Amino acid sequence: MLSVVDLRTRIASGALTPQGAVALSLEAIARHEPGVGALVRHQAEPVIAASGPLAGIAVGIKDIIDTADMPTEMGSPIYAGWQPKADAAIVSRLRALGAVPFAKTTTCPFAGLDPTLTRNPRDPGHTPGGSSAGSAAAVAAGMLPMALGTQTGGSVIRPAAYCGIAAVKPSFRLLPMVGVKTFSWALDTLGLFGAGVRDVAHALSVIAGRPALDLSEAPGAPRIGLVMQDFAGIPDAAALDALALAGRAAEAAGASLSDLALPGALAEAFAAHGTVQDFEARQALAWEYAHHRAAITPLLGPQLDAAQAITAEDYDAARRVAHRGRRALKDVFDEVDVLLTVSAPGRAPAGLGSTGASSFNRLWTLMGVPCVNIPVPGDGLPLGVQVIARFGDDGRALAAARLIEKALST
Amino acid sequence: MLSVVDLRTRIASGALTPQGAVALSLEAIARHEPGVGALVRHQAEPVIAASGPLAGIAVGIKDIIDTADMPTEMGSPIYAGWQPKADAAIVSRLRALGAVPFAKTTTCPFAGLDPTLTRNPRDPGHTPGGSSAGSAAAVAAGMLPMALGTQTGGSVIRPAAYCGIAAVKPSFRLLPMVGVKTFSWALDTLGLFGAGVRDVAHALSVIAGRPALDLSEAPGAPRIGLVMQDFAGIPDAAALDALALAGRAAEAAGASLSDLALPGALAEAFAAHGTVQDFEARQALAWEYAHHRAAITPLLGPQLDAAQAITAEDYDAARRVAHRGRRALKDVFDEVDVLLTVSAPGRAPAGLGSTGASSFNRLWTLMGVPCVNIPVPGDGLPLGVQVIARFGDDGRALAAARLIEKALST
Repeated sequence: MLSVVDLRTRIASGALTPQGAVALSLEAIARHEPGVGALVRHQAEPVIAASGPLAGIAVGIKDIIDTADMPTEMGSPIYAGWQPKADAAIVSRLRALGAVPFAKTTTCPFAGLDPTLTRNPRDPGHTPGGSSAGSAAAVAAGMLPMALGTQTGGSVIRPAAYCGIAAVKPSFRLLPMVGVKTFSWALDTLGLFGAGVRDVAHALSVIAGRPALDLSEAPGAPRIGLVMQDFAGIPDAAALDALALAGRAAEAAGASLSDLALPGALAEAFAAHGTVQDFEARQALAWEYAHHRAAITPLLGPQLDAAQAITAEDYDAARRVAHRGRRALKDVFDEVDVLLTVSAPGRAPAGLGSTGASSFNRLWTLMGVPCVNIPVPGDGLPLGVQVIARFGDDGRALAAARLIEKALST
Repeated sequence: MLSVVDLRTRIASGALTPQGAVALSLEAIARHEPGVGALVRHQAEPVIAASGPLAGIAVGIKDIIDTADMPTEMGSPIYAGWQPKADAAIVSRLRALGAVPFAKTTTCPFAGLDPTLTRNPRDPGHTPGGSSAGSAAAVAAGMLPMALGTQTGGSVIRPAAYCGIAAVKPSFRLLPMVGVKTFSWALDTLGLFGAGVRDVAHALSVIAGRPALDLSEAPGAPRIGLVMQDFAGIPDAAALDALALAGRAAEAAGASLSDLALPGALAEAFAAHGTVQDFEARQALAWEYAHHRAAITPLLGPQLDAAQAITAEDYDAARRVAHRGRRALKDVFDEVDVLLTVSAPGRAPAGLGSTGASSFNRLWTLMGVPCVNIPVPGDGLPLGVQVIARFGDDGRALAAARLIEKALST
């Protein structure tokens, strides 16, 4: 895989030019893209900035994120060939930093659940997950050092886990959502994919203009709470083994580990996620639903049909439950610095018929708290665990994840 | 003026058809628009739904709100002729309710401070206020029974006060922002203009799907806290007289009135508004700034220049101050049901060189709480007072405002 930090180190030392770094991506795309299908389109001769803290970093942009120089098709025939006027705020930010956002990556239609045709680079017979399918697959295939995804349920952390790469879903609204197609405004969160945790930590700190997010070490040995999410179901044995392995590695690296039972308010919040999401999706996609219902895909269409029955009262009640969940979660973080749990119920499902389940991600998206996926080494398709921290404590989540990632590799 | 409630009553009784109601708007536009200049464009033969709870209600749409059947120009030459793909969520909602969103109203460029050419229908030598200039002016001129605006500082309540009409800026995100051009995502709030408070209360309850917002009477005599906002400056004598008049009217109608000093945390929050707004505006308008700086208007351009110097640290600190302000405001609402204060420093300024000051609105926008403008009868250009309630308590704000409006008219 291409590493943001390695590329930047080589560019800073003069061993590599920004052009040379982007050429590595173009070569890898020529080699791997036919078998993976991670890209909607890319520019063969992108404009490459000579300088900037992310100069030479090729970035894949999920195709629900507006680009002024490439169509943005939302994964849907309704938007075939649609050319937005302006870059999304995050794309403008990347360009200002010298990065090269020259490729649009596949997305489930409107970042929903209907699968793409993208294949998992670790095994083409399996899904890469979704909805940020192309972004995860492109990084995992070594085509891009960095890609943008969005998470409303589990669309960043889950595909990262399935593809065996690092990802961060930062605190809600740390990254600007202007120009990103909305599914649910209370949930949609931009995230970053990269080869390793230090790569996404470095990229996030630069993009967000917050150097403290890029700590090479946690401030003191982290107190880690190991959590199951019984309300979300039981992960399979392999996922539980990966979680246990990550926990032991963390302890060996000096972290303190304790089993932690989540309060009931969080189980209730988990159950409220769908109501918040779907009541907002019905409004966010109202034009598409009213004018193009027949062109809406087989999973999203009925989801929106059902959403028409959700009342404002249901929604307000769900929002109150979420609010109580956030308060309860604050108390949890009085006891521990971060939480550690599985990123997905297991390995990437076989076939391309489903993008897998977001069950182990939804609660954290609703809580708005930072999540970091760490790939767990092992045989077969990848498994992932996620580190979760308090709202706004993205630096601590990333530092703890780096500690665990390092401990797992030794 | 055209009243939503009157038109709907006549339509429901069969005395008026939806076509007839919209024809009233078209006739008034032919008569008044040349002197006011409130519209960017309108459809001469709009599609008119035969039924629906808002059938026959012509609605003006501020021209930063996407419409699939009319260009959306953001008040800026940068977007001249720009045709969005989809309707904004709020426009879809209006159409689904039978309303007729057939006119785009003038807006300050990107809903900033640079004035439009729109004139105040009460006196063409004065500004109607901004940035929702055309929406306020069109309703005040009797051209439209309803119009949509947005408020980031004071862009709904202030023009309503200057034009002598009612308006509600609801709780943050009660109305969906999808498809509305962003200035500041933590602040931008959709609002409604109408002839009277009962009109905006009725329309808001229908649009938001929350019947409880349309109470004809407050639940019990409201406890009203009369507040100055010393941190925002001193209103002129006429504005203070209007406030005193509204207070006496409320007391005469049975409300209890007490002077209330706002806690220091709210003065601090007031001072943090600009940092939150401008740090976000710089990101929201990054593409325009990078590619079209020369076409950005004389007030917004330097505002964005200055915003480049705001650090993430400044912004995070301002957000924390706002958070503390929201907590302090909750305590205030343990003492009273609603607050009453001026809507603007005074009457609409003369000339079209300035849209007036948002000083008395900014804090409430940052707090995300509902605000309702009540026109205060008197000589000369209009004056307004605003009723403010706790977050989510829009129904109480509207009911108290109706009580005061009624008391003022007797």
